[in-house]
Amino acid sequence: MTTQPVAAFEPPYVMAVFSNVRTADDTGFDELNDRMEEIVEAIPGYLGYESARTPGGLGITVAYFRDHEALTVWRENLQHQAAMKRGRADWYESYTLHVATVERSHGFVRNG
Amino acid sequence: MTTQPVAAFEPPYVMAVFSNVRTADDTGFDELNDRMEEIVEAIPGYLGYESARTPGGLGITVAYFRDHEALTVWRENLQHQAAMKRGRADWYESYTLHVATVERSHGFVRNG
Repeated sequence: MTTQPVAAFEPPYVMAVFSNVRTADDTGFDELNDRMEEIVEAIPGYLGYESARTPGGLGITVAYFRDHEALTVWRENLQHQAAMKRGRADWYESYTLHVATVERSHGFVRNG
Repeated sequence: MTTQPVAAFEPPYVMAVFSNVRTADDTGFDELNDRMEEIVEAIPGYLGYESARTPGGLGITVAYFRDHEALTVWRENLQHQAAMKRGRADWYESYTLHVATVERSHGFVRNG
């Protein structure tokens, strides 16, 4: 689990914001989520991801990629496609995905 | 507090992802946060925002705007600038801001 924000990467880069509300069914979720992390981390051009969830409420996950080509590899991965299908069938009450190109970014670290 | 993801707006639009870790100091935070919501909601071109926070961990807030001009009005608002300064002084251990143009988006609602 992320405990610090990801870095401000050098623009331009790509980010996918996945905001969602889960169902009460979490059967198999953690196991498949771990597997998806292994797959995405192996994609060239993958930069990082971060996630937050308000208990009983909204979850937001952001994945960062160097370019759209890297994101396309992730989107078209067959195991990822199967996981998305499972998500719609069982795990998500609702979600929205926003795919964007980051034009600027900056970070702050206390005493950093 | 948001309990559903925001809609998939018609691209292109702008989003600002603010991921952060808070300090233990929350003095005055909720009051100022409510005031900031009032201000941003009054800006023409503001589309919406959503927020999630893992207890004791990462928070992610995403604000959506029709275009960069609307976001600039928000960034340059004097009360917002004072609030950001207060955030760096007291409330945030670390944060990263990513400003991006959304090129595509889609949503899913169960039985929707």
